[in-house]
Amino acid sequence: DFLNAVQEIIPAFGASTDDLERCRLNGMVDCGGRHKHIYERAMLLVEQVKVSKGSPLVTCLLEGPSGSGKSAMAATVGIDSEFPYVKIISAESMIGLLESTKCAQIVKVFEDAYKSPLSIIILDDIERLLEYVAIGPRFSNLMSQALMVLLKRLPPKGKKLLVIGTTSEVGFLDSVGICDAFSVTYHVPTLKTDDAKKVMQQLNVFAEHDVDAAAEAVSDMPIKKLYMLIEMAAQGERGGAAEAIYSGSQKIKISHFFDCLQDVVRY
Amino acid sequence: DFLNAVQEIIPAFGASTDDLERCRLNGMVDCGGRHKHIYERAMLLVEQVKVSKGSPLVTCLLEGPSGSGKSAMAATVGIDSEFPYVKIISAESMIGLLESTKCAQIVKVFEDAYKSPLSIIILDDIERLLEYVAIGPRFSNLMSQALMVLLKRLPPKGKKLLVIGTTSEVGFLDSVGICDAFSVTYHVPTLKTDDAKKVMQQLNVFAEHDVDAAAEAVSDMPIKKLYMLIEMAAQGERGGAAEAIYSGSQKIKISHFFDCLQDVVRY
Amino acid sequence: DFLNAVQEIIPAFGASTDDLERCRLNGMVDCGGRHKHIYERAMLLVEQVKVSKGSPLVTCLLEGPSGSGKSAMAATVGIDSEFPYVKIISAESMIGLLESTKCAQIVKVFEDAYKSPLSIIILDDIERLLEYVAIGPRFSNLMSQALMVLLKRLPPKGKKLLVIGTTSEVGFLDSVGICDAFSVTYHVPTLKTDDAKKVMQQLNVFAEHDVDAAAEAVSDMPIKKLYMLIEMAAQGERGGAAEAIYSGSQKIKISHFFDCLQDVVRY
Amino acid sequence: DFLNAVQEIIPAFGASTDDLERCRLNGMVDCGGRHKHIYERAMLLVEQVKVSKGSPLVTCLLEGPSGSGKSAMAATVGIDSEFPYVKIISAESMIGLLESTKCAQIVKVFEDAYKSPLSIIILDDIERLLEYVAIGPRFSNLMSQALMVLLKRLPPKGKKLLVIGTTSEVGFLDSVGICDAFSVTYHVPTLKTDDAKKVMQQLNVFAEHDVDAAAEAVSDMPIKKLYMLIEMAAQGERGGAAEAIYSGSQKIKISHFFDCLQDVVRY
Amino acid sequence: DFLNAVQEIIPAFGASTDDLERCRLNGMVDCGGRHKHIYERAMLLVEQVKVSKGSPLVTCLLEGPSGSGKSAMAATVGIDSEFPYVKIISAESMIGLLESTKCAQIVKVFEDAYKSPLSIIILDDIERLLEYVAIGPRFSNLMSQALMVLLKRLPPKGKKLLVIGTTSEVGFLDSVGICDAFSVTYHVPTLKTDDAKKVMQQLNVFAEHDVDAAAEAVSDMPIKKLYMLIEMAAQGERGGAAEAIYSGSQKIKISHFFDCLQDVVRY
Amino acid sequence: DFLNAVQEIIPAFGASTDDLERCRLNGMVDCGGRHKHIYERAMLLVEQVKVSKGSPLVTCLLEGPSGSGKSAMAATVGIDSEFPYVKIISAESMIGLLESTKCAQIVKVFEDAYKSPLSIIILDDIERLLEYVAIGPRFSNLMSQALMVLLKRLPPKGKKLLVIGTTSEVGFLDSVGICDAFSVTYHVPTLKTDDAKKVMQQLNVFAEHDVDAAAEAVSDMPIKKLYMLIEMAAQGERGGAAEAIYSGSQKIKISHFFDCLQDVVRY
Ligand SMILES: Nc1ncnc2c1ncn2[C@@H]1O[C@H](COP(=O)(O)OP(=O)(O)OP(=O)(O)O)[C@@H](O)[C@H]1O
Ligand SMILES: Nc1ncnc2c1ncn2[C@@H]1O[C@H](COP(=O)(O)OP(=O)(O)OP(=O)(O)O)[C@@H](O)[C@H]1O
Ligand SMILES: Nc1ncnc2c1ncn2[C@@H]1O[C@H](COP(=O)(O)OP(=O)(O)OP(=O)(O)O)[C@@H](O)[C@H]1O
Ligand SMILES: Nc1ncnc2c1ncn2[C@@H]1O[C@H](COP(=O)(O)OP(=O)(O)OP(=O)(O)O)[C@@H](O)[C@H]1O
Ligand SMILES: Nc1ncnc2c1ncn2[C@@H]1O[C@H](COP(=O)(O)OP(=O)(O)OP(=O)(O)O)[C@@H](O)[C@H]1O
Ligand SMILES: Nc1ncnc2c1ncn2[C@@H]1O[C@H](COP(=O)(O)OP(=O)(O)OP(=O)(O)O)[C@@H](O)[C@H]1O
Ligand SMILES: [Mg+2]
Ligand SMILES: [Mg+2]
Ligand SMILES: [Mg+2]
Ligand SMILES: [Mg+2]
Ligand SMILES: [Mg+2]
Ligand SMILES: [Mg+2]
Repeated sequence: DFLNAVQEIIPAFGASTDDLERCRLNGMVDCGGRHKHIYERAMLLVEQVKVSKGSPLVTCLLEGPSGSGKSAMAATVGIDSEFPYVKIISAESMIGLLESTKCAQIVKVFEDAYKSPLSIIILDDIERLLEYVAIGPRFSNLMSQALMVLLKRLPPKGKKLLVIGTTSEVGFLDSVGICDAFSVTYHVPTLKTDDAKKVMQQLNVFAEHDVDAAAEAVSDMPIKKLYMLIEMAAQGERGGAAEAIYSGSQKIKISHFFDCLQDVVRY
Repeated sequence: DFLNAVQEIIPAFGASTDDLERCRLNGMVDCGGRHKHIYERAMLLVEQVKVSKGSPLVTCLLEGPSGSGKSAMAATVGIDSEFPYVKIISAESMIGLLESTKCAQIVKVFEDAYKSPLSIIILDDIERLLEYVAIGPRFSNLMSQALMVLLKRLPPKGKKLLVIGTTSEVGFLDSVGICDAFSVTYHVPTLKTDDAKKVMQQLNVFAEHDVDAAAEAVSDMPIKKLYMLIEMAAQGERGGAAEAIYSGSQKIKISHFFDCLQDVVRY
Repeated sequence: DFLNAVQEIIPAFGASTDDLERCRLNGMVDCGGRHKHIYERAMLLVEQVKVSKGSPLVTCLLEGPSGSGKSAMAATVGIDSEFPYVKIISAESMIGLLESTKCAQIVKVFEDAYKSPLSIIILDDIERLLEYVAIGPRFSNLMSQALMVLLKRLPPKGKKLLVIGTTSEVGFLDSVGICDAFSVTYHVPTLKTDDAKKVMQQLNVFAEHDVDAAAEAVSDMPIKKLYMLIEMAAQGERGGAAEAIYSGSQKIKISHFFDCLQDVVRY
Repeated sequence: DFLNAVQEIIPAFGASTDDLERCRLNGMVDCGGRHKHIYERAMLLVEQVKVSKGSPLVTCLLEGPSGSGKSAMAATVGIDSEFPYVKIISAESMIGLLESTKCAQIVKVFEDAYKSPLSIIILDDIERLLEYVAIGPRFSNLMSQALMVLLKRLPPKGKKLLVIGTTSEVGFLDSVGICDAFSVTYHVPTLKTDDAKKVMQQLNVFAEHDVDAAAEAVSDMPIKKLYMLIEMAAQGERGGAAEAIYSGSQKIKISHFFDCLQDVVRY
Repeated sequence: DFLNAVQEIIPAFGASTDDLERCRLNGMVDCGGRHKHIYERAMLLVEQVKVSKGSPLVTCLLEGPSGSGKSAMAATVGIDSEFPYVKIISAESMIGLLESTKCAQIVKVFEDAYKSPLSIIILDDIERLLEYVAIGPRFSNLMSQALMVLLKRLPPKGKKLLVIGTTSEVGFLDSVGICDAFSVTYHVPTLKTDDAKKVMQQLNVFAEHDVDAAAEAVSDMPIKKLYMLIEMAAQGERGGAAEAIYSGSQKIKISHFFDCLQDVVRY
Repeated sequence: DFLNAVQEIIPAFGASTDDLERCRLNGMVDCGGRHKHIYERAMLLVEQVKVSKGSPLVTCLLEGPSGSGKSAMAATVGIDSEFPYVKIISAESMIGLLESTKCAQIVKVFEDAYKSPLSIIILDDIERLLEYVAIGPRFSNLMSQALMVLLKRLPPKGKKLLVIGTTSEVGFLDSVGICDAFSVTYHVPTLKTDDAKKVMQQLNVFAEHDVDAAAEAVSDMPIKKLYMLIEMAAQGERGGAAEAIYSGSQKIKISHFFDCLQDVVRY
């Protein structure tokens, strides 16, 4: 039925699969040096898992504001690892399930990974897996206990596992004690003016003399919000402008861009 | 039986259906510039969803005081979009159901929408869907988790979805984290004196020289309360006056109007 | 069996039925101008529902201290309306039932009302329907959500409904958000000295020269407590006096009346 | 089986039954003027219920410190009323039952009472019926709601009911709102020096010259504790003295009496 | 199976049974005057229950720090009473049972006791029976309500019952209201220097000139901890010394004794 | 199935089993004097249990920061004891089980141990067995009650049992009251500079002149984190260096080591 919880993803020969690709729907653009550094470090962990004898289990947390590109980065590492078993665990496929069912499905993914010599498991949006809400606060302790144990349980002899978690609620994860269960943690940031400018130039929808002002205005915005904003602005004030802008025959009117910025940045 | 949760609404050729029309029982009058601006912006989002390639999912929240016209506005956008699939999810058809049943029904509506190339889903009175009450506060975390995931889950390739939410408890939605899950948020306001005057003139139940005083007295009142108040006053002090007033042969006595105002505005 | 929840009350030709009459066991005496004003306003709402085209649903809350006569007033309006469908929903017939059963029964009453062209539903003692208790505070959120939706859900085309609620915990109802769901609210007060005197004169159990002192002493007492007090005093200091007093052949000894007042007013 | 909840008590011709008599195991001694006054007032309520036409339901609460004689007093009123139906509802026969079972049994007692022309129901130790505990505080809201409704529900036409409640947690009952549901409340006190002296003289276990000192020392002690203390002292310092003391051939040694007082009054 | 909750203990002719004896595994040594006084007072209560006519139920609480000898004392009183029915109720035989099962088993023990002319019930470690934990705090209200009723319910005519409770959480029991349900309470203390010295001399494992220093160092230690400490020290620094020390051919090295003290007294 | 909770471990002739060995995957290196002292003391308790007549049950808690080597130490004591029955109870094999199931499995292990003349039970990561989380805080009271009783329940006559617990949340265990249930507690520390240096020299992956600087930098780090850090650094800045370093043909570049330290120590 429609609630079918864990997608099987067994990429062969380094080819990535649908689920991982969906995390980076519009491809990847260069988001600046800080994003790149994290990617490289994560790829070193991939290698460590592969060659190490002493650490059959390595765990890494990507944390940062909502929409900053954590899931896209984790998916990219998963794809580029060319490991025989790469799986993403996400709340999207577990809506409305019982805690215990979710828990069993997650355990199942780990058990499957233990059968592959080299595996990556992505725990996407951990606060959502834990059903976290700030009021209370409330969350599933069943899930948090399960994750804390799974993040420390060694795979069987000869098997190796890299776990990559993502979250935009690092403070919560910290107070639950899940942060400490990860070996390393990287902060995936919003875009600084320079990063935003780089992204805008790659998209090529602004007149050259507007790019600086536009980039300045969106400083400290996550990549996701920037994409949404540009899309809104591309419709034009009265609609109908999108095709011309994406084909390059027209540019976004900077004043309309600033209007749209008002809607996106909550007053 | 009487608890039958989600009404199927498949308007064809831009014709709106019963459920959407029920949200604007007495037709729509001009409520002033601020209401109009929000309507136009929402219609731009309709277009963005239609033409965009990069954003198959757009989400928009209408928030404002109780009775300010949010549901009527959302319904109007749904009708005017002429999309093949427009559905309203409301607590009215889910009274007394279990959390899990409600949740499954909402997921069902989204799954159905994913089958249509262009869809609109209206999440009406989100705080009521979440069974929110200020004491505690209490609410259904099952529902809030489901909504947070659904508001971010992309429709399948080639399908496009606009989600419009309404709420009069934006502070609560914010602290749960649901506000952040919407791309844009608009505030639907009460009527200022000028807006109220405009509405009164369209209804034509006051003597011309009374309209200004009446409009002044109801400043910052939501449209719903204004309608109720006029209806009460139209009965006359001793009853029996309504027919004459609605037929236009008589006007509302301004002193009685002020009396009724006392009852409606809680002392 | 003994737990049979909702009493069917279908008064014909203005004749009231048992359940409504039980709310005013000893008949109605004149309680002064403020009670009368509320009665008249409520009867205007009855007319508004009857003749209006724009407001098929009108809701009215009677709030005030325990024993001030709210239920008796609501029952009287129900009887005097001569509507074909008048029903009282009270916790008395739902003791010990599950929340969900109570909720289903209340929804049932509304569904029944939707079938009658003109209906009145009395939600008696709403805090008791919600199982409210100040410690905590605790209450049934299932019921409060159901009421909030029912108080806003429009009856089907052509049907009209007046809902009258009563409560002695208006502060609680306010903080839950149920007060806002009512169109109008009236405060049913305790008796001022003048009101009490009027009641005492109608009962004719005091010597004429004692009435003023007696009325002064019970100022701000609800009608129910006044009746209880008079009944206690009518037994006499050593018992046995009641018959003589009610037959009018003897009057209540004022000093004993004051003694009884001590017992009723908690020290 | 051993959990059989409500004892049937149908005294005939003023003869009291086992359950009521068990509440006053050692007979009743004169506890002084304040106890007597409450007894007389309660008997007036018995008469009021019997003769009144306007108040078919009278409710009375006896509150006071643990062991002050509330249950014994209520049982005595029940016995002396000579009503055809007198029943005591106590937690003793409902240990470990589910809330809902207890509730149903209590409702059953009321339903039975409604069949008798004149009835008395004793709700003994209401805080225990509600499973109250100060930490939290916790209590059964199901039971408190049931009691609040039952204490206001009128018996059917022609039937009369007196409800006597007892409690040593009047503050709790007040904050739940149960106190307000009673028409009158009496405070059953501990023994003042004079009362204690009177009791001791009736028991005749002290030397005459010791009575004053003994009574002085136990001032403000409830009757139950005083009985326990005398019983302990009657064993003598090394045991074996009880028979001689109760036969009157020996008196309690006042110094040993003071020693025992230490054990009973917690340090 | 292994969870079989209440052990039947029917000592005949003053001979004690296994369960009671297990509470004093190593026999009883003289712990000083304060322990002795409590024992004597408890034995007076045993006599009171036996001979009294007025108090068929006597209840006594032994409270004090963990390991101070409360259970051993209660077991000794039970054995020395030579009553035909002596039973100990302990959490040891009810691990993991449901509240309601535990509750039923405890009620069962009381019902059994009501069949014997003279009975003693030991409620051992009441806070453990109530599943008390300081965080929250949490505890079983079902059990606390049951105990409060059982501690006041009179046995049937002609039967007599002494209940002895033990606890190391007297503050908790007090705030629940269970302390007040006991007629008398005794505090079982830790060992003062003199008491400790007496115990050490009876065990005869120290050189005579070391006893004072050793006793001084363990002042205010409960008897249980003292036994553990001596046992640890008796192994010697490198192990292997125990046999020689217990046979008396060697004494505990005082410096090693002080080392062990460090481990037992938490830093 | 995959959730099979308690592993049977019956080492014969001092040979350790898989489960215990898995706790010390990379063998044991010398961690300095403080670790050694605890090991020796724990081995003395092993002897005490073996030879003692008075203490058939000894309980010992190892507490300290996460990764400091508690489980490895407990497993080593278990192996070196050469007891016929040594079992480790860990949350790893009980993920997602119901409280009551976990509880029953733990009781089962104790019951099994009671059948062996000499047994060791390791309660590994007690806070995880209790499902502890700091927010709230929350934990399983069923489990905490069970442990508190099991830690005090004596094995049957002639059987001896040593229980070793480990925890990194000693504060929590203390406030639950579980610490007091252990006879002795030892603190397993992080590595001081000297300890870290010793470990590094044994691993032989640094150039001699870098060891001091490296050891200084990792002061107060638990052994587990130190192993992880060295492993990361051993990959080299661009990867590919691990083999050369572990074979000894190359040393870790100290500057890269400091870089890695940044990732592990959260910023
Ligand atoms: N480097 C990139 N180039 C282009 N698009 C990107 C890049 N990184 C992320 N995106 C896009 O930005 C959007 C948000 O990214 P992503 O979902 O990875 O963010 P996130 O940090 O996981 O957000 P959330 O906290 O909401 O889960 C996605 O649509 C993704 O395709
Ligand atoms: N522009 C308008 N012209 C005429 N009537 C309107 C208009 N807008 C709203 N109304 C009417 O006002 C009433 C309240 O509007 P609506 O239900 O949309 O408000 P709302 O903001 O959704 O309120 P709530 O917070 O209670 O859900 C409805 O009866 C609706 O028909
Ligand atoms: N106008 C009146 N004349 C005579 N008796 C009245 C009048 N109004 C109320 N009573 C009587 O007073 C008593 C209390 O009235 P009622 O039950 O209506 O009060 P209430 O405000 O609903 O109280 P509660 O808050 O307890 O529900 C009833 O017995 C009723 O019959
Ligand atoms: N007037 C009296 N003469 C002799 N004994 C009395 C008298 N009143 C009460 N007692 C005895 O004192 C004891 C306590 O009385 P009772 O149980 O009525 O007190 P209570 O106030 O109901 O206590 P609790 O709050 O514990 O329920 C009983 O054993 C009862 O028999
Ligand atoms: N007088 C005594 N002589 C010798 N041993 C004693 C004596 N009293 C107690 N003990 C021993 O001390 C230990 C602790 O005693 P006991 O279990 O009675 O203490 P407790 O106060 O009940 O402790 P807890 O609060 O943990 O239940 C037991 O092993 C018991 O055998
Ligand atoms: N003396 C040692 N020599 C070598 N490796 C060790 C030593 N002690 C511990 N380790 C290793 O360090 C890691 C952590 O040790 P261990 O699991 O015992 O720590 P812990 O204190 O139980 O941690 P946690 O609090 O996370 O349970 C393990 O991989 C273990 O093999
Ligand atoms: Mg993400
Ligand atoms: Mg709305
Ligand atoms: Mg009422
Ligand atoms: Mg009583
Ligand atoms: Mg004990
Ligand atoms: Mg460990």
